[in-house]
Amino acid sequence: MSNHKSIPLGEYLFRRIKSLGISHILGCPGDFNLTLLDHIYNVEGLKWVGCCNELNGAYAADGYSRVRDLPGVLITTYGVGELSAANGVAGAYAEHAGFIHIVGNTSRALQENKIMIHHTLEANPDHGVYRGMSEPIRSTSAFLNDEKTMASEIDRVLITAIKTRLPVYLFVPTDVVDAPLNASRLEKPLDLSLSTKPDVEDLIVEQIVDALEMSKKPCILADVLAKRHAATQQTRRLIELAGYPAFSTILGKGLVDETSPLYGGMYNGTRSFPGIREAVENDSDLVLNIGPHLTSSNTGAFSRQIKDENLIMLHPHYCSVFGKKYDEIHFLPVLEKLVAVVERDRKRFTKQHQVTRYVNPIIDKSTSGPLRQSYIWQRIGRFTKPNDIVFVEVGTAQFGMPDSTLASNVQYETQIYWSSIGYTVGATLGALVAAKEKGHKGRVILVVGDGSLQMSVQEISTYIRNGFTPTIFLINNDGYTIEREIHGPEQQYNDICTSWDHMKLLEFFGGRQKGFQSRSVQAHTIEELEAILTDTEFIKSDRIQICEVYVPRLDVPWILRGQVDAHKARVKAADEQQRKTWESLVLAGAFT
Amino acid sequence: MSNHKSIPLGEYLFRRIKSLGISHILGCPGDFNLTLLDHIYNVEGLKWVGCCNELNGAYAADGYSRVRDLPGVLITTYGVGELSAANGVAGAYAEHAGFIHIVGNTSRALQENKIMIHHTLEANPDHGVYRGMSEPIRSTSAFLNDEKTMASEIDRVLITAIKTRLPVYLFVPTDVVDAPLNASRLEKPLDLSLSTKPDVEDLIVEQIVDALEMSKKPCILADVLAKRHAATQQTRRLIELAGYPAFSTILGKGLVDETSPLYGGMYNGTRSFPGIREAVENDSDLVLNIGPHLTSSNTGAFSRQIKDENLIMLHPHYCSVFGKKYDEIHFLPVLEKLVAVVERDRKRFTKQHQVTRYVNPIIDKSTSGPLRQSYIWQRIGRFTKPNDIVFVEVGTAQFGMPDSTLASNVQYETQIYWSSIGYTVGATLGALVAAKEKGHKGRVILVVGDGSLQMSVQEISTYIRNGFTPTIFLINNDGYTIEREIHGPEQQYNDICTSWDHMKLLEFFGGRQKGFQSRSVQAHTIEELEAILTDTEFIKSDRIQICEVYVPRLDVPWILRGQVDAHKARVKAADEQQRKTWESLVLAGAFT
Repeated sequence: MSNHKSIPLGEYLFRRIKSLGISHILGCPGDFNLTLLDHIYNVEGLKWVGCCNELNGAYAADGYSRVRDLPGVLITTYGVGELSAANGVAGAYAEHAGFIHIVGNTSRALQENKIMIHHTLEANPDHGVYRGMSEPIRSTSAFLNDEKTMASEIDRVLITAIKTRLPVYLFVPTDVVDAPLNASRLEKPLDLSLSTKPDVEDLIVEQIVDALEMSKKPCILADVLAKRHAATQQTRRLIELAGYPAFSTILGKGLVDETSPLYGGMYNGTRSFPGIREAVENDSDLVLNIGPHLTSSNTGAFSRQIKDENLIMLHPHYCSVFGKKYDEIHFLPVLEKLVAVVERDRKRFTKQHQVTRYVNPIIDKSTSGPLRQSYIWQRIGRFTKPNDIVFVEVGTAQFGMPDSTLASNVQYETQIYWSSIGYTVGATLGALVAAKEKGHKGRVILVVGDGSLQMSVQEISTYIRNGFTPTIFLINNDGYTIEREIHGPEQQYNDICTSWDHMKLLEFFGGRQKGFQSRSVQAHTIEELEAILTDTEFIKSDRIQICEVYVPRLDVPWILRGQVDAHKARVKAADEQQRKTWESLVLAGAFT
Repeated sequence: MSNHKSIPLGEYLFRRIKSLGISHILGCPGDFNLTLLDHIYNVEGLKWVGCCNELNGAYAADGYSRVRDLPGVLITTYGVGELSAANGVAGAYAEHAGFIHIVGNTSRALQENKIMIHHTLEANPDHGVYRGMSEPIRSTSAFLNDEKTMASEIDRVLITAIKTRLPVYLFVPTDVVDAPLNASRLEKPLDLSLSTKPDVEDLIVEQIVDALEMSKKPCILADVLAKRHAATQQTRRLIELAGYPAFSTILGKGLVDETSPLYGGMYNGTRSFPGIREAVENDSDLVLNIGPHLTSSNTGAFSRQIKDENLIMLHPHYCSVFGKKYDEIHFLPVLEKLVAVVERDRKRFTKQHQVTRYVNPIIDKSTSGPLRQSYIWQRIGRFTKPNDIVFVEVGTAQFGMPDSTLASNVQYETQIYWSSIGYTVGATLGALVAAKEKGHKGRVILVVGDGSLQMSVQEISTYIRNGFTPTIFLINNDGYTIEREIHGPEQQYNDICTSWDHMKLLEFFGGRQKGFQSRSVQAHTIEELEAILTDTEFIKSDRIQICEVYVPRLDVPWILRGQVDAHKARVKAADEQQRKTWESLVLAGAFT
């Protein structure tokens, strides 16, 4: 085609992004992305949300992805910006909460001539070194340096973002921002189909259907990758149609509606509440595991033991039926087909066995006195209302909140696998943006510790800037309690700066906003916490509010203690073995 | 040697570090570095300084390196921690302010078995991927996985840190922390000699001596790498002995004492004050350039033009005399030998020409009314006292402060080449630690903008935690003014969150410290600023204090405007060329 109706590359990119349903772009401006950012304003309904720094921006893009069921978009400048974001990108990779990272690069001419302009490395002025550095933490990338493929490369990368839910990178040199791409491409929507081998998918569905029919006591184990790959509704629909007991995991918490009569409880290997492990591992003759994420913290420190002959796994990278593995078959088309089959003839799948609800027992029945972790997590759980979104920080909170029972349709998010402290303060920004974008009515609740808060605190001002009104539970336990539990409870390196006056936090970040309203309260005792959590104004969450909750510095949730104890025992055994090896190495003169 | 007197690896490492003169270790704890951190407390005089987050920690290690003339030490945990620090490491690489980055890794057994423990990537559970990612931003590294070489590898990496002044990495698996290294190694100090080819060095010195003798009007151009490679005193000594006029650069500012009668001014190509360019480029028949860093911002956007036949360059990676280049000859041994020769017989080098001091003209003689950039930078310069340490943030400040004249022996630091905004807030922590460590008496002053502050603000609490009392000038110009100058002056993406009440910043971060004292003041006018800067209490800087300085949002320093204008002209020309190419590409149907 010659003489095509053209559209500038920047606008093409943002129109494609908008066509996916995404309306907000996160990031930080830098002189190599400014002209690209101009094009945001050329796309109706697309908005820029500036972040305080790039790592928080990456966390926010990850949080957006989780809440929006669509990849977030983060724009940074090359070198300084993209490197600052790296940890947030890696976390999104580890937990399948991928987003689209667009990096404004120097012009092709500057790159070719290795000009020592700012953000290059004097001893190695190759502007492309940073592109190489992010290779392990992305699904794919494109460096838009060739006119012939710019448009198709943008499309390919965006499609990969949706399909893999892993991070993708687009590197945009300043001199291509206005390249006249062929506008007619936009008339054809992106092909987002995940189905690659329909016949294999059909075969898998057939095998699952047979297995479900044959089984006497099947259950569904719903795990986090179902959430990450936008299959929450499909998973819930299957549970409802089939009527089987359904369990979640520590990362998949909330995926099964916890008020549903079918909810069995949270399965976490030997770190499950009584009855749950037996129900999944022994009582069930078939476990349909949707979206498994078989990492340490999500399997009770690898204590999960489900027999292969009872197990069907539906994963983004494979499906497996009783040990027979089908690689590169995405679970979503399989799940969709399965739901359709069950929907057509529910009776065929009906079982007679009763569902036992292993409702979390109340583990601390105190009604007064100082607050402890055994009390607060379950209490925060009772504070939730239908449709709330809850982000729970890395640390003791994420090992404590599993004790809670959530209200109906609460979206619960934590980053227990990547475990980057400070994550939620950024991620909650993305959650707030996504919630607004989809017209979500529930509250947004952040549960964060005093140590984590210090990593990323400034992004709270971005909540204020955008008029968001989350409720923030700040758990003050005087330092890195999770680290104290693991090693060095009294070591100075586990202390944090304790001079922060959290009751002044919102006034500092919001004080100069016209008409700014906030609420800052604190609780040392059960009585004080109860007064706050039953206050109708607080419950409303119609202004930004912070509730500082004091717990003892060495108090930890039981799940964490169990996991750490198991870990310590393993390390101790390995250390003893190691010591013997070293003794012989020393004798042999191996240490030089 | 068999049956050696052993020392645990962790303690060996920290004793080696201490032997270099380093007494403070910066970083963040994480469960894969805790047992390593224990060993800090086994080395007398070594102290841990916890940071709020790893990027700030990296900035702090860089700042420490600059002030201490020794590499800082940063300890992080693998994955989350090391990636968060990456941008700070890259900056230290770009500007030769390298530090020792020690990363606590998982045990060798966990790595070999690719266990999906926290901080690994589920889709690629190779724990070593992050080690690969930092390869381009370090001088060398060692993964301490082999008993036979652990001690020698530690030594090699520490030596490289000192010699190259670039970042180095040590990756320490948890299971090697107590490996029984041979303690007797510690009796032999590390060999830090930079001299590799003494005969070549002698030859170069001879050539320089001849050239200096032959020249009629020589000058010395002292640049930033002399500072970075701990040659400030040698450089100043040479200037003093020879009595030649000496110029600095924008990054090397302060290296030549600005009160010295020999100080000619700041040479910055066409962006120099009147007379300076001519003095260096035309009037001098020999320019002895010590520690050049020939990057865009440090050469007046590449407008520097010194003829090869007049130029001698002494660089860490090479020395060159009138175009003849000697690779891999470090300038320090050459400089030392040269100083010795001049010291032996000063008269031999004495010239008759007069030194002209191109003292910075007062560019804004206003005495009242609203503050402008033309006024504030020179005024802050006059506020400096002998021995102050001044860190100047990326953005308008670093293009404005060159207008200032500093008091005697002021250490001036800015990151104009790597240009990562937010850098100074972290770097100043390192500067404060280093100043304390060396018993420095001068004040520490931070000049930061409102946008940059938002990137890294929390580290101010670490100043408070450690009892430091810097003076903070916060330039409030309502957003990213440097970006506005470059592109999009009124675009929303260049706005920042304006609701921060900076007058409450110190109270928020320090309010719960017993007996906390601070000072927060603001100035909109020259009168207000004068009242603050002449206040004896403020001048003392005996408590942490912040002075918020308001300037108009589109007001910029003249050097920045000149540089941006030149850049825009180049971009415009390139764009026009590009547009023509695209027209023909469109006609040829190249855009598909």
